[in-house]
Amino acid sequence: MPRPIEIISVGNELLIGKILNTNAQWLAKRVTSLGLDVRRINIVGDDVEEISNALREAIQRNPSFVITTGGLGPTFDDKTLEGVAKALQRRIEVQDQALRMVEEKYRKYVEEGRMERVELTPHRVKMARLPDGAEPLFNPVGTAPGVVMKHNETTVIALPGVPPEMKAIFEESVVPLLKQAAGNVTFFETSIDVTGCMESEIAPLIDRIMHDNPYVYIKSHPKFEERTPHLEFHLSTTADNSEVAKKRVEKALTQLSEVLQEKGGKIKPSKPSIN
Amino acid sequence: MPRPIEIISVGNELLIGKILNTNAQWLAKRVTSLGLDVRRINIVGDDVEEISNALREAIQRNPSFVITTGGLGPTFDDKTLEGVAKALQRRIEVQDQALRMVEEKYRKYVEEGRMERVELTPHRVKMARLPDGAEPLFNPVGTAPGVVMKHNETTVIALPGVPPEMKAIFEESVVPLLKQAAGNVTFFETSIDVTGCMESEIAPLIDRIMHDNPYVYIKSHPKFEERTPHLEFHLSTTADNSEVAKKRVEKALTQLSEVLQEKGGKIKPSKPSIN
Repeated sequence: MPRPIEIISVGNELLIGKILNTNAQWLAKRVTSLGLDVRRINIVGDDVEEISNALREAIQRNPSFVITTGGLGPTFDDKTLEGVAKALQRRIEVQDQALRMVEEKYRKYVEEGRMERVELTPHRVKMARLPDGAEPLFNPVGTAPGVVMKHNETTVIALPGVPPEMKAIFEESVVPLLKQAAGNVTFFETSIDVTGCMESEIAPLIDRIMHDNPYVYIKSHPKFEERTPHLEFHLSTTADNSEVAKKRVEKALTQLSEVLQEKGGKIKPSKPSIN
Repeated sequence: MPRPIEIISVGNELLIGKILNTNAQWLAKRVTSLGLDVRRINIVGDDVEEISNALREAIQRNPSFVITTGGLGPTFDDKTLEGVAKALQRRIEVQDQALRMVEEKYRKYVEEGRMERVELTPHRVKMARLPDGAEPLFNPVGTAPGVVMKHNETTVIALPGVPPEMKAIFEESVVPLLKQAAGNVTFFETSIDVTGCMESEIAPLIDRIMHDNPYVYIKSHPKFEERTPHLEFHLSTTADNSEVAKKRVEKALTQLSEVLQEKGGKIKPSKPSIN
């Protein structure tokens, strides 16, 4: 069974619909491809109570990992670590290694001529204030370090909200942890587009194919791209072996294609979704 | 105070990162512009237990509205109404008005030559199975009706996941309900882009401006568009009167602009985010 993971996105800009949650999609896709199972994504505002509640609720569901994004920067509304500390009932204090990471960044900015001198103002030191027992994760492209800590069986990871920083810390420091947890589990997926069929007509046939292929998940998505209504069928599975996963999906796809063609459907490979 | 609202997005395709959650962003933006306050967005898979848990948790936070998207169609994995019925401990049964809506749609498809005859198969009737006490909302562009029901102080609204269907039902049937609940409350926002400043340098000044403008929320977003790092400042407020809201934001913006220019920042109007 793939290990469960939850994502918590922090930011008022997400709750007012100012921006699309591309971070959550990117993380969900990466995490799934590494063989873990994203069980839930929560979006909360820049509020200590809300962040704390969302994390506490997530931890009660006992996932292997919770990854948060956003709220690690120097401003008053960067409140994620305060929320995490509250949820886990830990003190929050300046952590030496994190402070050295932050200081080193500002030293580099001085060298690059972006600042005159390193001044560790309270707003900058704030980025090194970590919950007790947490470790910083090096940020190769920005200032605020990521954070990792264990709580019972759950590893809590906090990443910045700026996409290049989030992605860089994820690839460098989080992927190894997830790979180790996932073991050999592989996720395999494929999609086809079909015109000339109605979803309600195909629904009972899908039930039959899924019954014959109990490890393959088949989902139909009505689409309206380029003004042509069509159905996309997405097939996916998780297995301990990538060959097994691929074969399983291919067998179900063959069966599905036959059934769709019998019903007069025209099949073509699906275009990949926007990333 | 703006009325609280929560959004629950249902769909495995969101948890595997196959698609971006454009529905949640669209809804969050529309709902905010109508003067309500999106408190939380939850994303769960096509699973009765998960849907039920997410709704039960949302209702315990006592929002005025919960809007769900996805999972209303004819396939086996369209499970939203079953999850809603479970969360609210209601029976789920074929509802006459909903069945007439579904039947009428298939009659139209026959007239358009898309089907030979109206056959109300179990998978089609499923779209008219509603929790006890729920009312269907007419779907102008698809088959599955939306659903509305009251539970204590919360109005629960279920919308389809196909974006044009979700938007059409929202505009036709949900907007009037939200407007009535919001009263005169207005949301006003504006953004500027600034180059030549560091976020950590500006952070203490923002604290001061927010202290002077207690009803205006100011948030800085580091951006990297077109390879130029810059800061976007987003200012927003909610008020009972649109003139008041606008004036409040403009006063804070004037103060912010002065402070940024003193620090050597170059200001230009912000580009709108992608919708």
